[in-house]
Amino acid sequence: MDHFKVNSKDLFFILKEQLSYGSLCRLDRYKDLNELTLDMLVTEAISFARGVVAPLQEIGEVRGIGFDGDSVTCPGEFKEAFRQYGEDGWIAAARNTKYGGQGFPHMMRIVINDLMYGACQSFNMAPSLTHGAAHLIESFGSDALKCLFVPNMFKGVWAGTMCLTETEAGSNLAAIQTTAVPNGDAYRIKGTKVFISWGDHDLTENIIHLVLARIQGAPPGVEGLSLFVVPKIQVEKDGGLGRSNDVVCAGVEEKMGLHASPTCMLNFGARDGCIGYLCGRENKGLSHMFQMMNSARINTGVSGMGIAGTAYLNALAYAVQRRQGQDITGSKAGDVAIIDHPDVRRMLLWMKGTVDGMRSMIYSCAFWQDFALELPQGPEKAHYANLVDFMTPIIKACCSEWGFRVCETAIQCLGGYGYCKDYPLEQYLRDVKILSLYEGTNGIQAMDLLGRKMTIRGGACYQAFRKEITSFCRKHKNHPVLGQQLNTLAGAMHQLKQTTVKLANMKKKDPLQWASRSYPMLMVFGEISMAWRLLDMASVAYDPSRPKVRKSDFYRGKVFQAKFFVDETLPGTLAKMGSCLREGREVVEMPERAF
Amino acid sequence: MDHFKVNSKDLFFILKEQLSYGSLCRLDRYKDLNELTLDMLVTEAISFARGVVAPLQEIGEVRGIGFDGDSVTCPGEFKEAFRQYGEDGWIAAARNTKYGGQGFPHMMRIVINDLMYGACQSFNMAPSLTHGAAHLIESFGSDALKCLFVPNMFKGVWAGTMCLTETEAGSNLAAIQTTAVPNGDAYRIKGTKVFISWGDHDLTENIIHLVLARIQGAPPGVEGLSLFVVPKIQVEKDGGLGRSNDVVCAGVEEKMGLHASPTCMLNFGARDGCIGYLCGRENKGLSHMFQMMNSARINTGVSGMGIAGTAYLNALAYAVQRRQGQDITGSKAGDVAIIDHPDVRRMLLWMKGTVDGMRSMIYSCAFWQDFALELPQGPEKAHYANLVDFMTPIIKACCSEWGFRVCETAIQCLGGYGYCKDYPLEQYLRDVKILSLYEGTNGIQAMDLLGRKMTIRGGACYQAFRKEITSFCRKHKNHPVLGQQLNTLAGAMHQLKQTTVKLANMKKKDPLQWASRSYPMLMVFGEISMAWRLLDMASVAYDPSRPKVRKSDFYRGKVFQAKFFVDETLPGTLAKMGSCLREGREVVEMPERAF
Repeated sequence: MDHFKVNSKDLFFILKEQLSYGSLCRLDRYKDLNELTLDMLVTEAISFARGVVAPLQEIGEVRGIGFDGDSVTCPGEFKEAFRQYGEDGWIAAARNTKYGGQGFPHMMRIVINDLMYGACQSFNMAPSLTHGAAHLIESFGSDALKCLFVPNMFKGVWAGTMCLTETEAGSNLAAIQTTAVPNGDAYRIKGTKVFISWGDHDLTENIIHLVLARIQGAPPGVEGLSLFVVPKIQVEKDGGLGRSNDVVCAGVEEKMGLHASPTCMLNFGARDGCIGYLCGRENKGLSHMFQMMNSARINTGVSGMGIAGTAYLNALAYAVQRRQGQDITGSKAGDVAIIDHPDVRRMLLWMKGTVDGMRSMIYSCAFWQDFALELPQGPEKAHYANLVDFMTPIIKACCSEWGFRVCETAIQCLGGYGYCKDYPLEQYLRDVKILSLYEGTNGIQAMDLLGRKMTIRGGACYQAFRKEITSFCRKHKNHPVLGQQLNTLAGAMHQLKQTTVKLANMKKKDPLQWASRSYPMLMVFGEISMAWRLLDMASVAYDPSRPKVRKSDFYRGKVFQAKFFVDETLPGTLAKMGSCLREGREVVEMPERAF
Repeated sequence: MDHFKVNSKDLFFILKEQLSYGSLCRLDRYKDLNELTLDMLVTEAISFARGVVAPLQEIGEVRGIGFDGDSVTCPGEFKEAFRQYGEDGWIAAARNTKYGGQGFPHMMRIVINDLMYGACQSFNMAPSLTHGAAHLIESFGSDALKCLFVPNMFKGVWAGTMCLTETEAGSNLAAIQTTAVPNGDAYRIKGTKVFISWGDHDLTENIIHLVLARIQGAPPGVEGLSLFVVPKIQVEKDGGLGRSNDVVCAGVEEKMGLHASPTCMLNFGARDGCIGYLCGRENKGLSHMFQMMNSARINTGVSGMGIAGTAYLNALAYAVQRRQGQDITGSKAGDVAIIDHPDVRRMLLWMKGTVDGMRSMIYSCAFWQDFALELPQGPEKAHYANLVDFMTPIIKACCSEWGFRVCETAIQCLGGYGYCKDYPLEQYLRDVKILSLYEGTNGIQAMDLLGRKMTIRGGACYQAFRKEITSFCRKHKNHPVLGQQLNTLAGAMHQLKQTTVKLANMKKKDPLQWASRSYPMLMVFGEISMAWRLLDMASVAYDPSRPKVRKSDFYRGKVFQAKFFVDETLPGTLAKMGSCLREGREVVEMPERAF
């Protein structure tokens, strides 16, 4: 069955009408590109996702992976798809041509991931990790490391991973125990990493692990972590493969979903034969790794949004064709399609708005990131960098949360059929569940946003966020059809300002109480961001300054979904802010024995 | 691993301190019982659930069921457990001794189900359906039918099912096509039923199906449906088994969870050899079936609550022993247990309150049902019957929704481990997902509550609900520690009254708009019910009229959870009521092509 569904009109509306993404081609780095080239890339990505990646979703679920106690095998179709993905340039679409990238703007990698994750999440993790790992070497590695590893990874000849977690170092990386002992111009690596996505497989002849470890004598805590390039098979100076590098897969997790994505326990150097190469500066490993972690966090949100997108469209396709029950007003004779039942429509409209809002939020952030990366030093560049930093935990947590909620709602639209494997939705729900857990649980994201992003650079990240939304509200406040909703958003921003000031006080006086409010506050930021992006889309769809306001159903839909989301959600957002400031200290005071 | 966890102190607090369930023994029918006998039954049920039923959860998941294209086989352990369940009297604990029941109050069947569903949902559906089917025959069947079928079903020698759904008749039973043609003193049944839980299996030598079908010439719609007893193997007049009754399992659904519970497609009479016996009155089948459906709806809520209960306790057990990260105030040295992290505590307290609140809501309703069943005719009996009718869709929908949410939150407490099959939580989440879908989707429950229960008997059901809560608020309004929360609840009740009046108007003037608000309103009723039950428990735990207010952690916990729930949830409930009355008609006006 053709499970993967995409509404390209929705995608292009955001890219072209809301963001004018062709303007990226005015950046010096992209001056050889134009909007048409970008459009073509999107169209090709849709076609590749549909033709090559989407069939893997069922194949991976049914056949899964094999593990013989030593190494992991994948369905042959995965191998072939990975090869083609690399060969066609999808891994490094947004990377410098120097090492084999395609030279497209950063944003295009996000659009590609939207489609590829929607087509098959478990598969697309592999090229996405490969891209992140290679880019880490490209950013921080020596020239020798870059030449040796990056081109083969960009081409998909070799794959890559990120190895952070250990049994006792999950949310808390300070506890990492893996060691690195100097050995000539390299290091001997020893330790065990767990939960390593695509940690072992046979898609490629080599796997390049990016590993956090502690050099002998380094300080404890995160300040003593360094980053290493650790290939599965040693690579000779001429690029040829040497002998095994003593990296052994000691186990594969049995999981709720993502059955085609091997989650591995890896033993490095159990026989003292594991060589790693320092990447970047000694003891700066975590700070280097954050490049990949931030990108993985955004991609977690992308994944939630991509799967939610196809989940919604599957529910819609079902609701349009399934006939059951009568029209409650009696105005239509006989059985009606279930989309005619108001409660089903309510679910569909909520899903549509949530998917479109997530996509707009993520694409906007990717667009800003290109400015943050490419603009010359100055306040504009800093503004976009701040904005992206602020949005990262919001996108990670909220889009994983809503992605799950959309899949759940899509199942609800199908009734009992949604629970059955005849439809793709139950697998989506199982696959998507990981997103609130990995790349830093959503609770960790809340602490990152409230504890760090609010205050770093003198609060500049938060100010960038506020500035964007308040000026948006001001610009459109007299909008003929969205005025009321813009007013609601402006009111929410006003309350947000007061709330955050009070929370900053609470943080000083009662940090436990403050921390207990971090997650609800993260959701507050998410809901406000969604309202903003949806209203922005609606204001593009219904622009009174244009000579002829567009009245097609497509544009009306953008207005309906924005009004619905704002009027249904923001009153609850205001209530949540109130709750975040209340004095009751039940969470903190509850005696452990009373749980 | 011992996945099933139960805090019997919490159970007994509700049964004994909140409800004084021993008072049921003052009812004439139960005068030979006393509170001690009831206590013993609960203790035995815990022990049976733990010892016999809980091990089935993993066995069923790993080994699942077999289907050879013709009939279903189950793990041997299921067969043995079912036998023992019947033999020990659990199926008919709350049924009349005349046909082999144990004669306990109705409420005890709910308490038993709480434990058995928590121990293994997929298994407990089998005895629960058997009970419902047998009780249907006991209530509406002829004496001959009763004698022939009920004792064997109560003893677990035979199992039972309910057969309603057909491919084109899911939410809409009016479309049922299965026919019944008179044949001597019986009928020939012909048709195909789908989604029949435990529709075929080898737990017992016979399966007694309770089937909705249309007698030749009966009116169309639900007014033409009659109820039939259709055994899988024909039963001779002397009770011995005869030949096969032409009921064939034509398929088994592949599902997201509940892998040990066969969901069957059943062909009745494909070879014209299927005999059924009319149960109750011709064309009154649906109204008879509602006895079983209502009980199945309540049990859906029980199931959500039971699984949520053990999910919460699993998360708690993990949070107490897992050490990770430091105390943010620095007041504890070294790594702390994650229960010390405020965001984890927040999740635990929310789960605890939600589980305890659901349990109180369900046990209270079961307690009232005993009065509704056993009190002499009069206003008191009517009051309790009305209350139970009103609470049924609330319990079904809200406890399936919250049960799912608790399992999801429990996974979140475990981080990545929650996603792995080493812990029972991912299976709970998959199993529990069915509850919002079967026995009438939650959207159907919303229409039942808003469209039917609000108005039947001149609004008496809604009045019974309001009367209970407003008099509760009045009674405790000066409570020294809960006064503020009681005030909030009273305010919510006031707003609810105004909201429902306006909704009644909307229903007349704009029924589609009204229907689009039915589900959010159902949740409003659920949240208010939870607040009420939690505050009721708290007022028992902290009773200022007692000579010595109890200060143990256990009782303090009841107060904390109530305050937390009310102050965190009810502001959102008020916002939701506001949204239900807003004028925006996006759901209704959204053009189909704009989705």
